[in-house]
Amino acid sequence: MHKVEHIGIAVRNLEASNLLFEKLLGSPSYKIEEVATEGVRTSFFASGPNKIELLEATHENSPIQKFLDKKGEGVHHIAFAVDDIRAEIKRLKAEGFTVLNEAPKKGADNKLVAFLHPKSTNGVLVELCQEIKE
Amino acid sequence: MHKVEHIGIAVRNLEASNLLFEKLLGSPSYKIEEVATEGVRTSFFASGPNKIELLEATHENSPIQKFLDKKGEGVHHIAFAVDDIRAEIKRLKAEGFTVLNEAPKKGADNKLVAFLHPKSTNGVLVELCQEIKE
Repeated sequence: MHKVEHIGIAVRNLEASNLLFEKLLGSPSYKIEEVATEGVRTSFFASGPNKIELLEATHENSPIQKFLDKKGEGVHHIAFAVDDIRAEIKRLKAEGFTVLNEAPKKGADNKLVAFLHPKSTNGVLVELCQEIKE
Repeated sequence: MHKVEHIGIAVRNLEASNLLFEKLLGSPSYKIEEVATEGVRTSFFASGPNKIELLEATHENSPIQKFLDKKGEGVHHIAFAVDDIRAEIKRLKAEGFTVLNEAPKKGADNKLVAFLHPKSTNGVLVELCQEIKE
C-alpha cells in the first residue's frame, strides 16, 4: 500500500456535488464514469498525488443508495494503491482482515479492486486498488 | 489544496488500533502525540505522500468521544495540505463554505489547522492544514 489512491464520498446529486467540490478543491472534475455492475456513477477530482471520487447511486439497490439511506452523505471508503492486489489480499487475510471479494473485480478508473469489511478495520471501508496495465 | 495530507480516523482504543493499522499498512505508527486543547491522543502512520491519523478521546467532552458516541469508529475528517491557510479560509468563505474556526489554530503534527463544517461539504468534515515553519 504505497499511498492513498483516492477517497470515495457518497453524494445524492452528482451535478450539485461536482460544483461543490470544484469550489472546494479549486479544479473541476476531470472524469465522469458509470460502473453499471456497482450501480454507481462516479466523478473524479485530482488533489496532487491523490483523487477524490464522488459516488452517486444509479438505482435503489445500489450499495451507495443503501449507504445514503443509512448514514447520509459523507466518506464512503478509503482506497490504497497496491502493486499486486492478489498478494495484498493474501497478506491481509493472513493478518485476520475480512476481505469482501477475494477475487479482485473491475472498478472505476481502470482499476482492479477489492474491499475489506469495515468490521475488521475500525469502521473504515478499505479498498485496495491496482492499476490495470493494458 | 495540493494533496490529501492525512485522513483522521476516530478509534476507541489507540493501542489496539495501532496494532491493527500496522498490520493493514505494513509499517508501524511513527509518532504518538496528545493535543490537550482538542482532547485527543493521536497516532500517525505514513502511506507514501499521505498520512493516516488515528484519534482517541482523552476525556468525555472530547469532540472525538462525541463522534464515537454518535457514529462509532470510522473516518472522522479529511485534511488537505495548503500553503497559505489564511488565504484558503478567505477563498472558501467567499465560495460559501462554513469555516468553523476563522482563526487557524495549532493542531497535531506541527500544523496550523482550520475546519469546514460538514453541512457545507456533503457531510465530510474537511480540515485545512499548513505546516508551521520555525
